[in-house]
Amino acid sequence: MRVHGKDYRTVWMKGGRVYLIEQNRLPFEFRVVASRDYRQTCDAIRTMVVRGAGAIGAAAGFALAQAFLEAPARNPWPFVKRARTDIAKTRPTAQNLFYALQRVFDAAQAAHNPRTAALREAQALADEDAACSRSIGQHGTALIARRCTIATICNAGWLAFVDYGTALAPIYAAAAAGKKVFVYVHETRPRCQGARLTAWELGNAGIAHTIVPDHATAHLMAQGKIDLFIAGADRIAANGDTANKIGTCEKAIVARHYKVPFYIAAPTATIDPDCASGAHIPIEERSANEVLFQSGPDSAGRHRTIRTAAPGASAYNPAFDVTPARLITALITERGVVRPTRAALQRLLHSTPARAKR
Amino acid sequence: MRVHGKDYRTVWMKGGRVYLIEQNRLPFEFRVVASRDYRQTCDAIRTMVVRGAGAIGAAAGFALAQAFLEAPARNPWPFVKRARTDIAKTRPTAQNLFYALQRVFDAAQAAHNPRTAALREAQALADEDAACSRSIGQHGTALIARRCTIATICNAGWLAFVDYGTALAPIYAAAAAGKKVFVYVHETRPRCQGARLTAWELGNAGIAHTIVPDHATAHLMAQGKIDLFIAGADRIAANGDTANKIGTCEKAIVARHYKVPFYIAAPTATIDPDCASGAHIPIEERSANEVLFQSGPDSAGRHRTIRTAAPGASAYNPAFDVTPARLITALITERGVVRPTRAALQRLLHSTPARAKR
Repeated sequence: MRVHGKDYRTVWMKGGRVYLIEQNRLPFEFRVVASRDYRQTCDAIRTMVVRGAGAIGAAAGFALAQAFLEAPARNPWPFVKRARTDIAKTRPTAQNLFYALQRVFDAAQAAHNPRTAALREAQALADEDAACSRSIGQHGTALIARRCTIATICNAGWLAFVDYGTALAPIYAAAAAGKKVFVYVHETRPRCQGARLTAWELGNAGIAHTIVPDHATAHLMAQGKIDLFIAGADRIAANGDTANKIGTCEKAIVARHYKVPFYIAAPTATIDPDCASGAHIPIEERSANEVLFQSGPDSAGRHRTIRTAAPGASAYNPAFDVTPARLITALITERGVVRPTRAALQRLLHSTPARAKR
Repeated sequence: MRVHGKDYRTVWMKGGRVYLIEQNRLPFEFRVVASRDYRQTCDAIRTMVVRGAGAIGAAAGFALAQAFLEAPARNPWPFVKRARTDIAKTRPTAQNLFYALQRVFDAAQAAHNPRTAALREAQALADEDAACSRSIGQHGTALIARRCTIATICNAGWLAFVDYGTALAPIYAAAAAGKKVFVYVHETRPRCQGARLTAWELGNAGIAHTIVPDHATAHLMAQGKIDLFIAGADRIAANGDTANKIGTCEKAIVARHYKVPFYIAAPTATIDPDCASGAHIPIEERSANEVLFQSGPDSAGRHRTIRTAAPGASAYNPAFDVTPARLITALITERGVVRPTRAALQRLLHSTPARAKR
């Protein structure tokens, strides 16, 4: 994605360092931070310098590659295994994180030179993520009419992946094909990734959009203002139940009520074949402070944190919810658009990718 | 309601002045402002110094009484009629505002001394509002089990009325009766009246509660964490369709999905017999800035306004939505709990009040 006339990925690795776009400061400040070692990359994942399913996965892959670089050359395995455990603990919900760790670890273990193999696999994963997102855009754009109003939640754009994104990729592809799209961007409390990141991305790409409060969906749909809803995914269980940003399940229920198609866009790496159903997906609970306080620049551009809730009040802050498969019209994946059934997901996972993956 | 050991109403009139609790500064600062004339009272309604269906109604009644005091004694009517138009324009959705204007105007017109009659009627309206809220609490508490988890949206507590409130009145009554209640308070973006006002009220009253992001309802209900939902109302059409804070319709859809009872608590003054259905209720659209910016105290207690959305982004900010009657389990009114059907509402409006109203 181009920012200030230059092409960027959300996360990349060069010379042992992992570079990340600092998403906590976006959209008010565009800054790239460098992480020297795997522990710093863990911090970046934990503090959400990098966030979003695919970007977390790529960062985790790079972090494990960093661990191989840091480990004693003679016997890297004890160090690397500890590092893998540390990285796995940073965020519990995104399947892409565990998928990336497994892939990089397995590739290193099978290789003559684990260090080189880990680096190569982490890079391949990041490249695949970008390629998958691009394919999701191509498959998804077929669902978008020549004039279309689309709603989305949180940020499943290029900032949430290595490039292109998932929920936003079909929108970018549709706009590039000359379709007239308009996007209702849900603010997505408490961290406002919709109002901050998605609105910034769409503005950057010149796509018409407006921000709406999170619970305005029913009002918009009741008036026929939304043609379709596209959300991303952090983990898809084997039966199609999907964990994504808190609020996604609610949007799916409301969409069903108004008969608005509700799509989940995600690479097949988000599918967890070992997870039988949504009931088994761990849901991260984050700090109450994310709900009780809010940060942003004041009129002089100085970053401030203010209290937005009654002093002394507590808050409950589950970061994700699970949308039952029956409420999802279809999944948009890099291998095509499929119904979220156990059988269809199994076929998908065992199908030959439509395009070479590496 | 007691604040700092003293009993307060939300709005009252004394010696030609209207006194209002400044709700824009709550919960960070408790301050009472005095309005000298009807135009200042209009400003207070428009800028939401006073907000909430019943409190707006009482303030509007007092504003019209002020206009009678300000008008030339010999022929007050041209001045008063202009004032009535001005007051009616402050907020378009709350039925209580129009109800209060009609009542005060009619009482003055029928009286020998219009000025005295207007003052008396405005005061009677405020007293009735408090009495109605109290009765709503008594009727509503029967719906609350000995251990009960209740969710609410926005603020339909005593701050939204003259005293007691509507959605919160049954909760206050249940707690007073020794029931163990726990309240999930929806933050209620963009103005956060849940996180600010309802959390403050409940904390003040010693009732256990926690704040949740607005679109976390489905997640909570999926886990069986909410026994019932109670919301307030700004206008109820003759067929039971109900306008209330944006998000209410969405909550009702989600509640129906999970078979959680969904109640609207409101005095019969909120019913607009001239409004055939929800399609005829005007929905106020407020400034995009309410979505794009947020105010509150920083850690030093200084009030700051920060940007919470991408620079240059727009926002759509409908203040209310309409919940279709079929999604409402029942209305809790001062005259009892009724199903929201056209026939039941008609019976309700023509029934003798359970308690003397004046």
